Amino acid sequence: MISPTLPAGFRCAGLHCGIKKNGSPDLAIVLCDEGTVCAGVYTTNLVVAAPVVLSRQRLEADAGVRAVLVNSGNANACTGEGGMVDAESMTAEVARIIEVSPGRVQVCSTGVIGAPLPMSAISTGIPQVIAGASAEGLMAFAEAIMTTDTRPKCRGASAEIGGRRIHVAGACKGAGMIHPNMATMLAFALTDAPVAPEDLQAIWRRVCQRTFNAITVDGDTSTNDTALLLASGAAGGAPLTGLELESLEALLEPVARELALDIVRDAEGGNKTVAITVTGAVNGVEARQAAQTIALSPLVKTAIHGEDPNWGRIVAAAGRAGVQLDPESVSVTVGDVIIYQAGQWQGPDAEAAAHTIMKTAEYGVTVDLAAGDVSSTVFTCDLSAGYVDVNASYRS
Amino acid sequence: MISPTLPAGFRCAGLHCGIKKNGSPDLAIVLCDEGTVCAGVYTTNLVVAAPVVLSRQRLEADAGVRAVLVNSGNANACTGEGGMVDAESMTAEVARIIEVSPGRVQVCSTGVIGAPLPMSAISTGIPQVIAGASAEGLMAFAEAIMTTDTRPKCRGASAEIGGRRIHVAGACKGAGMIHPNMATMLAFALTDAPVAPEDLQAIWRRVCQRTFNAITVDGDTSTNDTALLLASGAAGGAPLTGLELESLEALLEPVARELALDIVRDAEGGNKTVAITVTGAVNGVEARQAAQTIALSPLVKTAIHGEDPNWGRIVAAAGRAGVQLDPESVSVTVGDVIIYQAGQWQGPDAEAAAHTIMKTAEYGVTVDLAAGDVSSTVFTCDLSAGYVDVNASYRS
Repeated sequence: MISPTLPAGFRCAGLHCGIKKNGSPDLAIVLCDEGTVCAGVYTTNLVVAAPVVLSRQRLEADAGVRAVLVNSGNANACTGEGGMVDAESMTAEVARIIEVSPGRVQVCSTGVIGAPLPMSAISTGIPQVIAGASAEGLMAFAEAIMTTDTRPKCRGASAEIGGRRIHVAGACKGAGMIHPNMATMLAFALTDAPVAPEDLQAIWRRVCQRTFNAITVDGDTSTNDTALLLASGAAGGAPLTGLELESLEALLEPVARELALDIVRDAEGGNKTVAITVTGAVNGVEARQAAQTIALSPLVKTAIHGEDPNWGRIVAAAGRAGVQLDPESVSVTVGDVIIYQAGQWQGPDAEAAAHTIMKTAEYGVTVDLAAGDVSSTVFTCDLSAGYVDVNASYRS
Repeated sequence: MISPTLPAGFRCAGLHCGIKKNGSPDLAIVLCDEGTVCAGVYTTNLVVAAPVVLSRQRLEADAGVRAVLVNSGNANACTGEGGMVDAESMTAEVARIIEVSPGRVQVCSTGVIGAPLPMSAISTGIPQVIAGASAEGLMAFAEAIMTTDTRPKCRGASAEIGGRRIHVAGACKGAGMIHPNMATMLAFALTDAPVAPEDLQAIWRRVCQRTFNAITVDGDTSTNDTALLLASGAAGGAPLTGLELESLEALLEPVARELALDIVRDAEGGNKTVAITVTGAVNGVEARQAAQTIALSPLVKTAIHGEDPNWGRIVAAAGRAGVQLDPESVSVTVGDVIIYQAGQWQGPDAEAAAHTIMKTAEYGVTVDLAAGDVSSTVFTCDLSAGYVDVNASYRS
């Protein structure tokens, strides 16, 4: 993976400050020029980590973001009042060095829940990570936000919009406690486009819904999920409007989708990335619900792991999803092979062809509910013994 | 496990007829004396196997049950019109031999979804299994309904009710596609108590809700779930009334609970049986919902597997359950050890004590939401690499 160039107006860095025992990078920063606009989507979990509480309050207060500090290895969640003191202290230290008010610093934490942050290590690391920030720092940033991820995740793109070249770059991390209907654990997108705050937030909400909110690893919603879109305006000119905003959204969405898929591709123990598309639902809510139920089913996920075109488990999952469907008319397609059509098994040759497709790393499964005309796609991974290994021993 | 004596009025048998390739028992029957009353709870999955459709229709028609035929190794689900023809043919063959109308024969199937039944093997087996039925046949019945179960599951009890000795015996099977809010895959309870049909159905619904509907292995609801309670009345006397019915319910519930727990104890790949009790919910629906969300969380289940008192994952699961809770007042107790109280970690000694409890095979976890005064318990198991192994290769 090639690290994309940072859009103008941003500098990044990442380093090891001492949170992780194994010496891996664990502290990262994005520094933003004056005038940067920020849009945020945060976890919907009622149990919310201190950094999320603080950052969400600050985004609503709209003081204008100048820095985003991120640590990995410790989620600073379920840490009581001490956790909030630590989160505020981290941002105060950044604010002091870059000479802005603390309200203009966002903070994100990811890692183990419930342990107090090692504040002396973090305090030592903050001036160093700020000093190291550069236009070439996105990969170092992406490496320092990793937890159980096996590789850093960066994506970028650019396009001509309204006579200016607009750049987008992003980074994110997984790889467990991943479930739709929230922003995934930590995701960051940066652009040099000039955008009004309300337009930026509207674009980011829509894009997250179709990308970061459409993936699942294990159905567990994190206490720390945060997805931020930062727009520096450094490309120049007036804020984008009308069709220009649509062009920015079209530029941003594939970057966000690839980042979201990078999380599924690097899911804990996962080897397969599968797009579950439900068609023929009566409305969008039911289409999404059916796709999520299938995408979360442990029996479907183990069948994906075993490369077994077990349409019975897929149909059974749809049947318990609480959505309208016609059992006699349901169909299941793997890749381009129909294995179950209008309630009828399509025979061993169809299953053999589907099995061949399921040997590949990425493919699609389409389930037609035959009840309406609305569709939805959710991206999932297989459930492997590796997932169990990672999570049975995570804290030991 | 000692096979309990069958209540008077029932005979059982089980044998291998040829559905399973490995020669294990795969055909079972309960024969009931004239006058037996039947209560049934069936799957809530919209995709319903042919035998469930047929048996449910017949129970509603209330012709009086004289036999329950069960096959394992093949679910006769998603098998189209042919599946219904086969289910009817199985019951017609039983009815012909025992000389009753086909409407008085219930039929259950469990195993692989989507394959046609090997009807010639079943037709050969039916007269044999009927001929073998005896008052000592419950263990053979329990063995012949197994799929991925590693051991048969029988339970029994008796008590003096209204001047008569009343007996209860039951058998069930798991071990995957197990999720609350339905009857678990296949469960049968037999009693010699005389009970009016409407009283029997009311008792059975309540007992199932607190036992078979309160367990989860993987969150996948089967297409074939069936739980039947058969009452022969052979203990004699008038149908039970009032306090006698309450006594019967009190006799039945521990039998059903132990059978339900036997399924969790024998869950695919599972080594731990854990009672997740949520207290302090605002109402029963939310108490159950929070307990289920925690009990289903892959991160909680892998932590149970790893014997890790990871209260952070438990609190995070409660937080995404969609129920009212006060994050600052939530508490988590493992066995009798409080590890998280009113939003505060209780330190390494408490975690060490909880870890010791988690090394045992069966224990309880209590989560106090601190939002109300209603509680609910759901029984779950750990998520292990063994679950993945069983289900990635189930059909191969």
